[in-house]
Amino acid sequence: MIGFIGFGEAAYEMAKGLTQEGVTGIIAYDPLLIEQDMSHIIKEKMTAVGVVPCADAKEVAIKRELLIVAVPAQFALAACEAVEEDLTASHLYVDVSASSPTVKKNIAAKIAKSNGKSVDAAMLGPLTVNQHKVPMFISGDGAHEFKKRMDPYGMNITVVSEQAGDASSIKLMRSIYMKGTAALLMELLEASRELKVEDQVLASIKETMEAVPFEQVVNQLVTGTSIHSERRGIELEGSLELLEQLSINSVMTQASKTKLDYVSQLGLRQSFKGNRPSTWQDVIDEMKVKHQASKAGEYHASK
Amino acid sequence: MIGFIGFGEAAYEMAKGLTQEGVTGIIAYDPLLIEQDMSHIIKEKMTAVGVVPCADAKEVAIKRELLIVAVPAQFALAACEAVEEDLTASHLYVDVSASSPTVKKNIAAKIAKSNGKSVDAAMLGPLTVNQHKVPMFISGDGAHEFKKRMDPYGMNITVVSEQAGDASSIKLMRSIYMKGTAALLMELLEASRELKVEDQVLASIKETMEAVPFEQVVNQLVTGTSIHSERRGIELEGSLELLEQLSINSVMTQASKTKLDYVSQLGLRQSFKGNRPSTWQDVIDEMKVKHQASKAGEYHASK
Repeated sequence: MIGFIGFGEAAYEMAKGLTQEGVTGIIAYDPLLIEQDMSHIIKEKMTAVGVVPCADAKEVAIKRELLIVAVPAQFALAACEAVEEDLTASHLYVDVSASSPTVKKNIAAKIAKSNGKSVDAAMLGPLTVNQHKVPMFISGDGAHEFKKRMDPYGMNITVVSEQAGDASSIKLMRSIYMKGTAALLMELLEASRELKVEDQVLASIKETMEAVPFEQVVNQLVTGTSIHSERRGIELEGSLELLEQLSINSVMTQASKTKLDYVSQLGLRQSFKGNRPSTWQDVIDEMKVKHQASKAGEYHASK
Repeated sequence: MIGFIGFGEAAYEMAKGLTQEGVTGIIAYDPLLIEQDMSHIIKEKMTAVGVVPCADAKEVAIKRELLIVAVPAQFALAACEAVEEDLTASHLYVDVSASSPTVKKNIAAKIAKSNGKSVDAAMLGPLTVNQHKVPMFISGDGAHEFKKRMDPYGMNITVVSEQAGDASSIKLMRSIYMKGTAALLMELLEASRELKVEDQVLASIKETMEAVPFEQVVNQLVTGTSIHSERRGIELEGSLELLEQLSINSVMTQASKTKLDYVSQLGLRQSFKGNRPSTWQDVIDEMKVKHQASKAGEYHASK
């Protein structure tokens, strides 16, 4: 049923999970199969989970119509090029690599030429823990079909759009928030625990974050910051001083101050005449206007 | 009943709100009262809200036992010194300035010498909007008394501890999270809207942030990052590339990557032998151990 191109940790875990769900007939190719030293090891790994090895990627593409391509990001385009002329309108090409949205779009364009359908899949966690059930965002013209075919096997797939690149973009944007929040927490918890106020600090943040639904928190924070960035930047100096006193790494707080100063210098407060705009979208759209005006200014200045 | 030392915007709004709640007998001193040009204006402001002007801070301290000191942070210590010898065991000295925890502690020590009680108050929002009802964290040996006396007038006071400095520390730590989150959001929403995936990005973050109570989110993020900081730092490179492609300011994402690299370099993964620790406290405590070991190393190296 499924052919894997690339059989590293991700494909192995996925194949293992799917086999346990009753999927049969999985075949796979991995470049290590033709490396003398490694061939033995990778073959053993495949047969351990009931996967049949292939001689090359072309063989996988010829024998199977559902291809899951799980190669390191830097090889994703090459993997596609290795099989593109063997693809037909029946093929569903699913790239689960951590490639950029641009690479995912380029792959989708190649697949479209073959009349096959493609999926940009972004995995949102380690497969070693969740195996085939890892939360996965997908987009592309084959997204709905892939979800429909895989849902019976317990996969945790969310279709985000029919545009290749979207799933990867969402993952990368989501990452900014989740990893940034982790970094912020480490910084403030180090200081708060040193000051023995960690419980109250977390309780206070919890109260604000959980008082209203997340979308309202976003709206309050972004619209408020658009007109109060200058004052808030100055207020952060107190936090920075305290971190310095405690000799605690303050890279996130410094960046927050720099970002607030950057927002101040865009002049959003003036754009909104000091009145808080209604939605975060108003703020972001005005930021874009300011950027474009500043680029136009540079253009005129350079003439 | 109440004497204000410093009568800028904060004291004015508080006095106005408290007067409307039925508080009478408020007196106040502000240095502007003795500046020829400003005296008239500040007196008018006081009388407009039923506040009686005093000749100096000492007069306020002698005539009233509940003192609310609302001066700019850099004058907070001087304001205390101006009245300390007039304070008695009946005095309750409430500093609502945005001073550092250290200044708040110094003030508390001075008040303690006079046998009076003191409050470190941190205001968590603009008084122009909430007046006397602005959310306020307080700490210090006079905290419970102040809350008891002011609750009947609709003030929104939370006692956080009996240690001066704690209220201000909590405010400064909370600030790191709230302002940092705002800065993160502006960065990722600028990019997400440009990519037209903003709704899915917010929905995905919302799902994760609201799936479990905030304290569990904190635990997952901090413990996970302690052992996966290196991988997560590398993953952020994709987000950075995308921001660069879109010409969007990436100061927060860059800082997050720097912070993750910093955590990796501390060697927490090795400390925990690759196993996720149970609580965020384990992580923060191990960070402290690592810092101390590295300081000791520097000490030995410099000998």
